[in-house]
Amino acid sequence: MPFYIGLVHYPVYNKQGEVIVSAITNLDLHDLARLSRTYGAERFYVVNPLIDQQDLARRIQGHWVGGHGAGYNKDRSEAMSLISVVSRLDEALTEIKGREGTAPILIATDARDDRRETVSYPFVREIVASRRATMILFGTGWGIAEELIRDADYLLDPIMGASEYNHLSVRTAAAITLDRLCSQN
Amino acid sequence: MPFYIGLVHYPVYNKQGEVIVSAITNLDLHDLARLSRTYGAERFYVVNPLIDQQDLARRIQGHWVGGHGAGYNKDRSEAMSLISVVSRLDEALTEIKGREGTAPILIATDARDDRRETVSYPFVREIVASRRATMILFGTGWGIAEELIRDADYLLDPIMGASEYNHLSVRTAAAITLDRLCSQN
Repeated sequence: MPFYIGLVHYPVYNKQGEVIVSAITNLDLHDLARLSRTYGAERFYVVNPLIDQQDLARRIQGHWVGGHGAGYNKDRSEAMSLISVVSRLDEALTEIKGREGTAPILIATDARDDRRETVSYPFVREIVASRRATMILFGTGWGIAEELIRDADYLLDPIMGASEYNHLSVRTAAAITLDRLCSQN
Repeated sequence: MPFYIGLVHYPVYNKQGEVIVSAITNLDLHDLARLSRTYGAERFYVVNPLIDQQDLARRIQGHWVGGHGAGYNKDRSEAMSLISVVSRLDEALTEIKGREGTAPILIATDARDDRRETVSYPFVREIVASRRATMILFGTGWGIAEELIRDADYLLDPIMGASEYNHLSVRTAAAITLDRLCSQN
């Protein structure tokens, strides 16, 4: 039941398939924080190894949680307070293990389906609904790099809409994924 | 089966509940265009009565469809080409009627549920799957104004995640709505 989400900025691919650190996008933090609050995530981990990028993420969060934004929009403040900025995924996993007593089941997402065996939404929905803690990872840039996908317990099916085209933003892909996995109705 | 989406910038509410024209957000156009292409929408109408805002939307679209962006990212170009910028919703409805031979069934969306009777996702999914053309409207700012909601044939249930909190961005709300109404799986 307790689930966590992670937005990975490293290791991810760029358009050329090279492993890079991607930059923080302001609206990614807002949209995924609001999704986290809406669907009941315990924490939303922003994974980025660059100190200046971590500072940026914390500044954005600070504005809405403790700064002017908090007075302006209480709902936003509630959502943004779920953000935890970490250098590496391992830090998040250690923190979650500390809270839950066990490492979370790690579920990676990706738009491609040619990387390894994938599992269905109903299958992962059952896992999320179980007592075990789970963590769902979303990639920025051109997707989470192989080396991290390999470490995950499961890789979710890519989102298919009504055609073979599935080039969604991480914001909208995360929305669809969380709705399929965690919605009440 | 043929369905259209509209992103309404007027008439919408601001935080104080006043009817305003909201500004174009670059990432709204990208995210909703990519969703439109993914879920098979015929056109994505950006409704804004301000000429400079229309110009902005057309400039963004032009960059990706005919400009440098088209060479950089063909998938994006394909999605952005679905955008039509109109001053008023009526223009979109007239255009759709010209294409489809009949006005579309108009479905409004809103985060609140205290405005009028709402209909379920399975109900609207049936309508979208039927032969009649449909148009799904998403509001920017603090939601579509009453005067336009009243003109719609149906108002969809608000999206509920796992709590009473449902303050999503229009990008993520549109993603969840289209997935619930138009996904294959």
